[in-house]
Amino acid sequence: MSEPNISLYPGSFDPLTNGHLDLIERGARLFDRLIVAILRNENKASLFTVEERAEMLREAVRRLGNVSVECFDGLLVRFAEQAGARVILRGIRAVSDYEFELQMALMNRKLRPGLETVFMLPGEAYSYVSSRLVKEVYRLGGDVSAMVPPHVVERLRAKGRI
Amino acid sequence: MSEPNISLYPGSFDPLTNGHLDLIERGARLFDRLIVAILRNENKASLFTVEERAEMLREAVRRLGNVSVECFDGLLVRFAEQAGARVILRGIRAVSDYEFELQMALMNRKLRPGLETVFMLPGEAYSYVSSRLVKEVYRLGGDVSAMVPPHVVERLRAKGRI
Amino acid sequence: MSEPNISLYPGSFDPLTNGHLDLIERGARLFDRLIVAILRNENKASLFTVEERAEMLREAVRRLGNVSVECFDGLLVRFAEQAGARVILRGIRAVSDYEFELQMALMNRKLRPGLETVFMLPGEAYSYVSSRLVKEVYRLGGDVSAMVPPHVVERLRAKGRI
Amino acid sequence: MSEPNISLYPGSFDPLTNGHLDLIERGARLFDRLIVAILRNENKASLFTVEERAEMLREAVRRLGNVSVECFDGLLVRFAEQAGARVILRGIRAVSDYEFELQMALMNRKLRPGLETVFMLPGEAYSYVSSRLVKEVYRLGGDVSAMVPPHVVERLRAKGRI
Amino acid sequence: MSEPNISLYPGSFDPLTNGHLDLIERGARLFDRLIVAILRNENKASLFTVEERAEMLREAVRRLGNVSVECFDGLLVRFAEQAGARVILRGIRAVSDYEFELQMALMNRKLRPGLETVFMLPGEAYSYVSSRLVKEVYRLGGDVSAMVPPHVVERLRAKGRI
Amino acid sequence: MSEPNISLYPGSFDPLTNGHLDLIERGARLFDRLIVAILRNENKASLFTVEERAEMLREAVRRLGNVSVECFDGLLVRFAEQAGARVILRGIRAVSDYEFELQMALMNRKLRPGLETVFMLPGEAYSYVSSRLVKEVYRLGGDVSAMVPPHVVERLRAKGRI
Repeated sequence: MSEPNISLYPGSFDPLTNGHLDLIERGARLFDRLIVAILRNENKASLFTVEERAEMLREAVRRLGNVSVECFDGLLVRFAEQAGARVILRGIRAVSDYEFELQMALMNRKLRPGLETVFMLPGEAYSYVSSRLVKEVYRLGGDVSAMVPPHVVERLRAKGRI
Repeated sequence: MSEPNISLYPGSFDPLTNGHLDLIERGARLFDRLIVAILRNENKASLFTVEERAEMLREAVRRLGNVSVECFDGLLVRFAEQAGARVILRGIRAVSDYEFELQMALMNRKLRPGLETVFMLPGEAYSYVSSRLVKEVYRLGGDVSAMVPPHVVERLRAKGRI
Repeated sequence: MSEPNISLYPGSFDPLTNGHLDLIERGARLFDRLIVAILRNENKASLFTVEERAEMLREAVRRLGNVSVECFDGLLVRFAEQAGARVILRGIRAVSDYEFELQMALMNRKLRPGLETVFMLPGEAYSYVSSRLVKEVYRLGGDVSAMVPPHVVERLRAKGRI
Repeated sequence: MSEPNISLYPGSFDPLTNGHLDLIERGARLFDRLIVAILRNENKASLFTVEERAEMLREAVRRLGNVSVECFDGLLVRFAEQAGARVILRGIRAVSDYEFELQMALMNRKLRPGLETVFMLPGEAYSYVSSRLVKEVYRLGGDVSAMVPPHVVERLRAKGRI
Repeated sequence: MSEPNISLYPGSFDPLTNGHLDLIERGARLFDRLIVAILRNENKASLFTVEERAEMLREAVRRLGNVSVECFDGLLVRFAEQAGARVILRGIRAVSDYEFELQMALMNRKLRPGLETVFMLPGEAYSYVSSRLVKEVYRLGGDVSAMVPPHVVERLRAKGRI
Repeated sequence: MSEPNISLYPGSFDPLTNGHLDLIERGARLFDRLIVAILRNENKASLFTVEERAEMLREAVRRLGNVSVECFDGLLVRFAEQAGARVILRGIRAVSDYEFELQMALMNRKLRPGLETVFMLPGEAYSYVSSRLVKEVYRLGGDVSAMVPPHVVERLRAKGRI
């Protein structure tokens, strides 16, 4: 394999959690380059703008030399082609997760046959963490400092009451 | 069994996919008559009107002599009674699918004890195809011609940017 | 164990079903006290107000001496602390259910380590009953008298066409 | 469909349970003929001989005019071909069940493309009943009279201590 | 509830793992008494005798005042009746686990209606630990000291090569 | 990443199937080197010896320059360490599969923290193929030529009646 092995880790990251970060670190050890790819989805309400999410991610991955952060819209397989990625990286936890992930992976393989989806497990300490639950717990006044990096806690505070 | 064995295949079909069509062909070989029953659900946003969906389905099943297409609102079990159907046909793929399907089947059996739900597997080539994914891929500019019949591709194009 | 063993059974109960009631009766036999805790969630549309839901529940559990009904907003774990509860009671049926329940239970344990979630099975006769399906069947003119207590049927009728 | 619609219901039936019988009755209402097909598997230890199992089944289905009982060895798809069956009937309950059933159904479709597997749900009252559990409970001295027909209880008693 | 709330935690415990111990501690906080019930199953090969397993368990639970260890054969529901237990405690982890547990719970409820099964989650740090894997890893020369209590490691060493 | 990225694909391969081969080809495109690692498990009955299985695999992967075949006994994580592998490659299909795979992956991560398990999907055309089913179908006289490479069919024939 002469060309570098580039992997995409796509998602909404609204916001980044410690579970995402754990998976990014694992992926960065396996592939030559890892691109965290934030989906710009205007049809879906979000707490943070895509730019805010990119800033939080860039701060979190600064110490990882082979990880970069980019935004995309349109088809993931097309962005993968432009970025020269041969791998889509996804975390899996629960079964319901897994079923949807499998369906997406088969669809993406159909749309671009050479592109493989690989699944990795986040650390089990993060098995209950998701962006949705983090926002829900924060909204109700709960402590989320064990679930997201410190600079994400600050960003949540700066948002005020959500 | 002197009376004909009529089976209902209910769904939204927004739009018809090759996976639906595969299941219709399989069902049509097993039962005397198969009625594709389009749910008229005003509470749910749809891409195509019920009439457009019926037209696409009728064109697709024209060559199948014992298949007809009808629309219904209200309870499925009541429509089944009016249509003289003893069987509800459903496709199953993933587990999450299956759980919801099972719950619906038990509910429908409770509402009308003589009506049985039977499950069949679509061809594995269609295991990743769903109306929702087709619309999503099309909206993002992807090629869906392997997932829906040609006349459905034309209808999508006629809709313009969705 | 000198202090009473208090259990919380949280939910939306919009409306109460026979499946909920079955689980309340089972829980009331296992714990010293059972508090049915109705979540006041202003972000989610509901058919009945929180107060109407509380009235329906109170009528249904009147004959159970150790069961009370309360409403809460904010974090469940905080309400559990205020109520002196050491147990969260949840019913499980299907797999998709179970996965989400497990994630919530791990999150709640993280937020308040001493608080345990226990899962019980409703009677299998109720395996297809959910508040969502009850409302759907009622809306379409179906008979729900086997799925909810008689006074809930009356309340549904009083709502008129939903 | 001029030729009769024949369905095979294959299994070990060691012994027949009320769950099997429930499914046989449901299948007999849907298809012109239903053949209960007992697998003669010499590699697997069994409590009852294939002949004893056939006798128990024949007694149980005597009142169902379109049901017969046969034994087979070798490939199920070959027996289906000889019997003129176009349908394999299977019951589904739990998820683990379902996954294996799905794999078998795809394999059988591969081995004989025209043969379809259809899945039906046994009555929920039988969702916990299996031949294995019946034997286990009986062996430990438990009462199995709610799980198998009366003549199967007698056969178990005649076996003595198992 | 005037009579004490006694809970049974049944299993093979061949050998006790840290996952079992975690669940025992959680259960002991919820119920007045917890009886760890070792199944004496002569049909199943085991590494440790029932007596050795009981000794390991008794040493592990000595510091828990309301936990005792007993052995039983025959039906679990009968032992529960003799012990005055109203609750069977079970841990759940994976889905396949859960399905079988659910089937057993429905069967036990059928055999003895007043007896409820409650499910609790072991700490997520133990989600990969099972007696079977512990034995397999030990047999192949791996380090199991993070998976079982120290005195169980000693017992494994005393067994020599397994 | 200066050192080569070596991946292990462990299994029994009794015998190699087209599903295995599909996964090997996918893995060989993603990693610098892929070692197919045959588990030498003397406790488990097998159709082919470890040496026969290695020969079949070597013939099948000859055209893939970066794939080699080795046998191992003992702990997988120890073999991975000796081979300099940082990745364990596993295929996933069904849910039950997935649950067990997840448990193994967490255990292996515990035993050797730097070693990551990645999961990939075999082509959906192989979703029903397993070594166990191939042997079962062959034993009953079925045609397995669509499920294994031609030289494996020859080896099965050479075994005679199995």
